[in-house]
Formats: sequence, structure tokens, C-alpha cells
Amino acid sequence: MTSAFRDPTIQMAHGAGGQASRRLIEGLLRPAFGNDLLDPLADAALLPGGLALTTDSFVVHPLAFPGGSIGELAVHGTINDLAVSGATPIALTASLILEAGLEREILEREVRAMAEAANRAGCPIATGDTKVVEHGKADGLYINTTGLGRLHPNASLGADRVTPGDKILLSGAIADHGVAIMLARDELAMESDVRSDTRSVLPLTTALLDAWGAEIKWMRDATRGGIATVLNELAHDADVGVVLTEEAVPIHDAVRGACELLGLEPYHVANEGQYLAVVSAAVAEEALEQLRAIEGGDEAALIGEVSDASRRLVLGKTPFGGTRVIDMLIGDPLPRIC
Amino acid sequence: MTSAFRDPTIQMAHGAGGQASRRLIEGLLRPAFGNDLLDPLADAALLPGGLALTTDSFVVHPLAFPGGSIGELAVHGTINDLAVSGATPIALTASLILEAGLEREILEREVRAMAEAANRAGCPIATGDTKVVEHGKADGLYINTTGLGRLHPNASLGADRVTPGDKILLSGAIADHGVAIMLARDELAMESDVRSDTRSVLPLTTALLDAWGAEIKWMRDATRGGIATVLNELAHDADVGVVLTEEAVPIHDAVRGACELLGLEPYHVANEGQYLAVVSAAVAEEALEQLRAIEGGDEAALIGEVSDASRRLVLGKTPFGGTRVIDMLIGDPLPRIC
Repeated sequence: MTSAFRDPTIQMAHGAGGQASRRLIEGLLRPAFGNDLLDPLADAALLPGGLALTTDSFVVHPLAFPGGSIGELAVHGTINDLAVSGATPIALTASLILEAGLEREILEREVRAMAEAANRAGCPIATGDTKVVEHGKADGLYINTTGLGRLHPNASLGADRVTPGDKILLSGAIADHGVAIMLARDELAMESDVRSDTRSVLPLTTALLDAWGAEIKWMRDATRGGIATVLNELAHDADVGVVLTEEAVPIHDAVRGACELLGLEPYHVANEGQYLAVVSAAVAEEALEQLRAIEGGDEAALIGEVSDASRRLVLGKTPFGGTRVIDMLIGDPLPRIC
Repeated sequence: MTSAFRDPTIQMAHGAGGQASRRLIEGLLRPAFGNDLLDPLADAALLPGGLALTTDSFVVHPLAFPGGSIGELAVHGTINDLAVSGATPIALTASLILEAGLEREILEREVRAMAEAANRAGCPIATGDTKVVEHGKADGLYINTTGLGRLHPNASLGADRVTPGDKILLSGAIADHGVAIMLARDELAMESDVRSDTRSVLPLTTALLDAWGAEIKWMRDATRGGIATVLNELAHDADVGVVLTEEAVPIHDAVRGACELLGLEPYHVANEGQYLAVVSAAVAEEALEQLRAIEGGDEAALIGEVSDASRRLVLGKTPFGGTRVIDMLIGDPLPRIC
């Protein structure tokens, strides 16, 4: 059996979360692992008995950056995958791949960062594993976290529940994480106070589900590939159009400036503490007010709506009345962002 | 807060599963992650509701070797951690870290190996993740698998249940995996038909629990650090002595010869398809006969017993009436074995 994935070698873009990643997943991984549970494009697998399971490996470079480090990123990322799947974390696993020669202080710092992030989220790290590879066979430290969660009793999420007229909420300002990583790599050679947005979105997702139940139709965190990729996946998976009101998307000035300098589309830049929710129009304004009242939700915004025109496309409406097509990420302008 | 782990840098031995690994786990990881669920020295965490959770990252070098490859190793290893914890797998996760430049054929081969191993064990791969790092920042392919299982209704396992007089069963011949890896690395420059023992031990553990329930007191797979390390952990955790009848331990001739050439103690060499079980003396002979009747169990053996003398020590009884102390692994003679 040959697979539909025909790229001769693996390239950085296959890990970027955009079109090349999708080609690898749809062409090779999904057919090979194919089973009833597997939906590799969702954030977590839903298992019988109301359980949710998700896994992520973290290879961010550098290990520490303004606003965070790989340890807390690894915990928040997996908690967020459960959260946007409508689940509450029960337990995490932590598996470390260490490069020989790694300084104890760095390992201590990241282990503490993991423990503190897990404590803040009220989720125990229940088991772990440690491997060591020779110097030059890793890049300091890679972390896998896997999360087991239990579905919120009110959760009724799925692309198949999305219908034209639904509104799209965003939990806060975008592109902070990707730009913070670029600054930490000193690729801009500029001073800035941009900080990664790494955080648990669990309080924000839980509040929506507590209050609105089935009126919350779909949620997804906007990590690799940014909100553009996630909205394209929404348009594709729900077979709908997505209309983005561009001036409604919160972007910090310093982040916008850095993206302009680098020629990056902020919609393609990774976030580590933001998610998108599709909610029924009837509750959208109230749900937004609720998000804004929660600590860390003050920059939440209603950024667009679901349409029955231009299916499988994301259209951006500019402040001047123009319309443009917003594609998912192609290539990998920001490798190893998480 | 400073940790009790004071080694200035990480070295290969910290990943070998022996004393240095234990120092890292007990000195840093367990105190930092400390919670009621965490027992980093057990194969899986037991969660409320009869669930078991385990994680392992695989960095074996080379990726393919006589008898197996990293893909099936990654699936079998995690299934085995659940199996010896008395659990039946419900679902696995698969997270890949790929080195840019990896050939598609290799990735395809390993993804298929994972899928086939999971199918044979009747356990779906429910969700996954893929990251790519630059050429030179990994070694082809690293795989994390995490397994969720449900406890066997008859399982009542724990070091605290082990008492003097209990017998120790071993599922088959030891050291095949480690020696196969050494041969694959061509470090012996010799011809041999030694093959890795990578396999699921689930049929063997389930049969014992089905038949004997609480008479099966403790199980552990003998991976990194070999049976010597696992038996030392048993002696330590149960606060008992372990007496090993050395001539009863099955070792294939070619494996024994290779170990002699390399100056390796076979008891320290990793296995990937063998486990140890402590069973009450009353059922030991019958349980052994049962194991031997199962496909793949024909080399099972009764290799020793639990004693109330020489607590926290493993003593080997030689065929000539001598006695020696068998230590856990120190250092890492066989790095990246799994």
C-alpha cells in the first residue's frame, strides 16, 4: 500500500500546522491510524464514557522567551486542547527528551514551570518519563504532555453544529506568542515589551459552557498557523463561509509593528493563550460581555460570523469596505514556535 | 527552593533507567510534580474511576533493528506499561518529533509499524501530534506514546502486597532486545540471529489476572536497566529481600555469548517483551504452567523468591552454591535502547 503523501522528505513546513501539515496528516497519518476515534484535526479525541484525550510535543526554540518558557507552554498547550474540546483536565503526563550536557539549572527551571502551571490549573501531573540523547541529537529539551479530561456536562461542540448566522468570538489579542519568540531569537534586533500570551484558557471556556451550554457550538485554540488557519479549518470542516471583520481583531500595536517589519500576516502567527468560539447569534453579545468580565478576557472580541456564501473560504472585510481571501498558512515562516 | 538533584549537567546515564535516573526522578521530578497520583517509579498512574495512564518517549537508535523498529516499540512499550499495571488499553496517543530531511519512506514504514502493532493489540491510536525540528536537532524520528487503560477487575497489584515466600515468574528469555540493538549498531562486528523481543505482553498479563486475581501481587516489565534494576526496585519498594536462582533465568546462547564478548551483565540489558510477576507461592507452579501454554510464553520460568532476609538486596544464587549481590544498573552501557 502506498500513501497519498508523496513529499519525498520531511521539511520544516510539515510541522507548521498549515497546508503541509494537513497533507501529512490527511495523506499518511489518518489513513494509517484510521479508526472511529481518530480525528487528527481536532484538538482532542473523545472517548466512550465522556473522556477526552490529547497529546502535544513541544520543541519551542529558544527554551525561554518573554512571557514564558517551554515548561509552562507544554502544560498550558495541552490543557487548552482539552479546554476547547469542552473538557476539564483530570490528569497530565510529562515526558522529557533531554540533550546530554543540558544544565541542571535549566531543567530545574522548566520542571518547576511545569509544576506551577499544572498547579494553577488544578491538574496533577500524574506520570512521566525521561530519555536522554547525545549532545547534538536534540536542542536542550523537548517535552511531550498528554492530557486526559472529562467532558463538561453542557458541552455539545462540533463543526456539524455550526450554521450560517452564528457569531465568532475571539478570547483576546493575537500574535503575541509568535512575535515574542521572534524577539527572543533576536531576529528583529529591536527593543519591545511584547510577551507571549501563554496561559490556560480553561476559565474562559468553562465560563461559556457553564452559562450557554449548547449555544456554544465550536471552539478551537489558535496555535500553529494562527487564527487564519483555524478559521479555514472551520470553513472546511463545517462547509460554511467565514466572514472576518478585520478591524475587530485585537492586535497589540507593538505586535502589529513587528509583523509589518517582518512581512508577517498576524492572522498566521501562533497564539498560546487565545481561542475562537462559534456561538449562536442570539447569545453572542452576552457571551462576549461575560468573557470580558473574566480575568484575562478583557480584550475578547466579536470578530466575524458564519455565512452560507463563499463556502470553504475565509473572507476578510477591511475597514474601507474591501474584501480579501484569507488563506491558511503555507510554508513555515516561524518554525518551532511551540 | 533548591532540589536534592545536584548533578551539574544531564548525562546519558540519567536516561538509562538505573541509579542516575532514580537520582533525577527522586531528587527533582517527584518533589516538583508531587501529588497524590504521582508515583514516577511505577509503570502507570492509577486514576480515580479505575483508569490507568502511562507515557513513554522512544529515542531508540538505530530506528530499525533485527526483530523490530521504533514504531512497534513505541506501541508495545506503552501497552506493556499498562499491562503490567493490571490495565487493559483503551486508547493510545502518538506524538512524532521529526528531523527535517527524514525520508518519507522511513516515516511511512514507522507509521505503518505503529498502526499494525496497535491493531494487533486491539487498541486504537486515538489522537496525535507532529512537530518538525531542523536537521541536526533530532535523530530521524522520536515518538511519544501515551496510553489510557482500564484496570482489570481482578487486579490487586502493589509492592505493599509482596510478602516473603512469594515466587517470582519471568515471562521469557532476557536481554534479546539490548543485544539486538548492539548488533544493529554493528558494535560487535559479528553475525548473529538475535532479534529484539519487542511484543505486547498483554495476553500474558491478562491470562494471569483472569485466572489468579489477587494471587498476582506485583508485575513490572524489565525494560531499561534490565531485570536486575527491576528486582532491586522490588526489593526497595516492598522492603524485602529477593533471591534469584541464576540458572533458572532463561538466556539464549547467542545473547549470552554477545554479553560475554561485550562485558555486559545480561541482567542489566533491556528487554522489550518480558515482564516479572510476583505471585503467591500457592499458585506459582500452576501460574507458570499457564504462562508456558500461551503463545509466546513457552520460555517463562520461575526464577526466584521473596525473602525476609537481606532486605533491599537482590542476591543471586549460582549453580555452584555461591551467592552474590546483584546491583541495579549504574551508568549507561547501552544508551538509547528504547
